[in-house]
Formats: sequence, C-alpha cells, structure tokens
Amino acid sequence: MARLSLYQQVAAALRRAIYTGELAPGDQIPTEADLMETYGVSRNTVRLALGELENEGLILRMRRRGTFVRERRPLLMRPQDEFRYLEQGEPRFDSFVHAVTAEGRKPDQRIEVSIVEPSPDIAARLALPKGGLAVVRRRLRYVDGRPYNTNDSYFPFDLVAASEIARPGNITRGANRVLEELGHPQIRVVDDISARMPTADESQRLRLDPGTPVIVHIRVGYDPEDTPVRVAVSVLPADKHLIRYELERRRH
Amino acid sequence: MARLSLYQQVAAALRRAIYTGELAPGDQIPTEADLMETYGVSRNTVRLALGELENEGLILRMRRRGTFVRERRPLLMRPQDEFRYLEQGEPRFDSFVHAVTAEGRKPDQRIEVSIVEPSPDIAARLALPKGGLAVVRRRLRYVDGRPYNTNDSYFPFDLVAASEIARPGNITRGANRVLEELGHPQIRVVDDISARMPTADESQRLRLDPGTPVIVHIRVGYDPEDTPVRVAVSVLPADKHLIRYELERRRH
Repeated sequence: MARLSLYQQVAAALRRAIYTGELAPGDQIPTEADLMETYGVSRNTVRLALGELENEGLILRMRRRGTFVRERRPLLMRPQDEFRYLEQGEPRFDSFVHAVTAEGRKPDQRIEVSIVEPSPDIAARLALPKGGLAVVRRRLRYVDGRPYNTNDSYFPFDLVAASEIARPGNITRGANRVLEELGHPQIRVVDDISARMPTADESQRLRLDPGTPVIVHIRVGYDPEDTPVRVAVSVLPADKHLIRYELERRRH
Repeated sequence: MARLSLYQQVAAALRRAIYTGELAPGDQIPTEADLMETYGVSRNTVRLALGELENEGLILRMRRRGTFVRERRPLLMRPQDEFRYLEQGEPRFDSFVHAVTAEGRKPDQRIEVSIVEPSPDIAARLALPKGGLAVVRRRLRYVDGRPYNTNDSYFPFDLVAASEIARPGNITRGANRVLEELGHPQIRVVDDISARMPTADESQRLRLDPGTPVIVHIRVGYDPEDTPVRVAVSVLPADKHLIRYELERRRH
C-alpha cells in the first residue's frame, strides 16, 4: 500500500469532506491555525494541502476573506451530441443549450456575425485560398447570467455568402442545417483539444479568476468531398467545463 | 492524391526539414524574404505556411527576434487508437509508444505497480465497495529522455489480483489484453477531459515551466456487463500535448 505524505493525508481528508458534502459549495474552510491544530501538522503542511485542493479546483483562496469550497458544477460538454442530432435528423438543437438546460440552468448567448480574413491557423484549417474570406459567427455564452465560454464558427465566405449564415442573428434550425441545405452536409469532424493560459482579452470577457487555464476545442467539419466547411473554436474556462466522449467497440 | 495548395507545399517542405532534423530545435527559420525567394512565393503564402507550422507547435515566432524551431513539439494523442487496436485484434501496441515512434522520437517509461485504497473519485469511477482496493500501474513516460506525461491505470483488486496486472514490470501484450483473457474485455469507454494547474508534485516530476497547465484525460473502460474494469488517468502538460478525436457520421 503506497504511503501518503503528511500534506497529502490532510488534502485527502479535506477532499473527502468536500466530495461527501460535509463541506458544501460556498462553505468556508477552517483557518490554517484550525487545520494545524486539527491534524497536528505545521503551517507549511497545511499550505501544501490547500495548494493541492486549489489546483484541483475544489477550493478558492480569497485574500483577507478566507478559503471557500468552490461552486463546482463544471458544465458537461458532449461534442458528440451535435453530431448525433445531425445523424438523427432531429430538430437541430444547439448542444450548448442542450447541456445547460439538461442541468436545470439557464443558457443565453450573444451572437456577432462578421466577414473577416481569418488567422493563418483558421485559414489553413478551412483550406482557404490566398486572402480568402470567412464568415465568422462569434458567440459569447452565458449560464445563469454569467459569461461562461466563447464559440466562434468560421465558414468559407464563398460557400455561405447568400445564406442566413452570413446574416446577423440566431438561426433557429442551426447553421449546420443550413450547410446541409446548401449541399454541404458535414459527414466527418476532427476535434483538436488543447489547453493554455487565457489571453488578457479572454480573462476579461469571461471574467476568469487568476490562474484559471482554458481548454481550447477546435472542430473542423468536412463535407462528402472532404472539403472543410466549418471551423468551430470553443474557449472553455477549465474551472467550469468538462468534456466527455463515449466510444463503443464495434462488433466483429 | 489531393493536390496541396501553394502554402501547404511550403509548409510541407519546412515540416520535412524539421522532422528530419535538417532544422533542429532552437534553429532559426529563414526570414520571410529568404523563404519567398527560395520557394518563389508571395509573402502571404510564406505567412500562411509559417502559421500552419506555428499551430502545429513546430515553430515559435518571437517578436523582433525571428522564428525558431520549437524545443518541444506537442505530441498528438489519439485516444481512439487504443480502442481501434482492440477492435482489430492486432498485436497490442501502447498508443503512447505508437504516437511517439510515429513522430520519429524515442519513447520510454517507468512503471510502478502497487495496491492502494484509491481516492474517492477513482473508487467511485471503479464502483468499488467501501474500503475496496485497486491495483494501480503508475507510469512516468519519457520522450527523447525527457519526462513527458504520467499515466496511472487502476484496476479492481479482486478482478486482477491473480494476473500479471498485479505484478511489477511491463506487460508486452498490454493490460487490456490481459483483461480480455480474464473475461472482461472493454467494449465501451468514457473519456473525461479537463484542465487545471499542476500540483507541486506534478510540476517537479514533469519538470514543468511555470504557468504551464495540464490536461487531465480520464478513461473508464466497461466490460459487457457494464462493470467498470479500468480507470486510466493521464496527466498531459498542455505545452506538449494535443488530443484529437475523429468522428464519422453514420449512414442512414
């Protein structure tokens, strides 16, 4: 049986209290002095333990106010859902809206539509010709009134110029359905997932706590000719999101 | 064979030079003017090509100093590969080893096997009874001699106690194959992906630069009875890894 170091034991005890609900979201964690006495350990050990829990996103240390159990309900994102809806030909449902309402929370979003010469990365992913333009639909998304994540979807300008995709405002049946109607259904997607620290702009727009990384999820959708017809870039604050994929083994 | 656009051809030439080592880590990439002359292309094409390589994590553009081959290229992880190998019944191939060797780099790993009472999170995912034990195979993985990521696989003790999984050392045909032989093939997996700042311990073991987040990839494998038989936790430094999933739309 692997032995835990002292600070790991303290962290484990606190973690258990949080996971079992003994310490609930919003509750204050006992002070360092209290924890030193409770566990008979040094201040340094208490700090290492709290540092561990902070890194796991379980607690939030606020200067002068104390340490609290985080409101920790990461939103479960299922990137396969969007694709499933397309398969089933169901009324198209925004997968973010679906994820949020499934948790009994209230989604909202602001959309800005513009025509841009995209960054080299996006241009490359869309296989645009030199100087090629894209329509981008930028979304800032809210949950229960708080900014939550961003989702920017790029489309080749030539492909969508005459469609609703290039016009401002929401598309009730979804941009993916419009692509289908234009003769470019997405039959394959490639999802790239990475993480990094946020830019200053992202920190501000998404009101991130200091030290919160973001997960970047980039989906490229291909039509039956293997032409990329959409690039969707989601920036997901790591303290508020969890991404889940489910894979089934094919029968022989 | 799909035709490559001009900038993709330039990107491909530079990529080849980097992968073959003609351009080594830390080397300066020729200036835009030099590249324009070498390949007889416009500045925009050069920029698109460099943007492509930057996005792949191969090069680093530094203001006023120029463009350099990155010290560390992000390793492309394809979590679906492990599952594909299982499907095809091919000789089992560690997907990390596969990803690394595919890039012409040298993989290595150290494995420690122990019996533990796992954290509440792992215990819950493995559906262990109260106080239940797990065998954990902890791997610290290296690429070209540098620590790169960790992968800890947990198995219910009662299931694997008598098998190779509970014994120290590498299992050439893979632990997944051993689970199959024990009558518990994994026919479904659920992958949870999140990100956070590293713990102090992870920073040290993985020699992380300050401010580098980690991606946490947790795979739970289920047998035909829908019993969880394995939980694999990978901790992937965000500056060195990219995760990719590919999804195909099923035909109606």
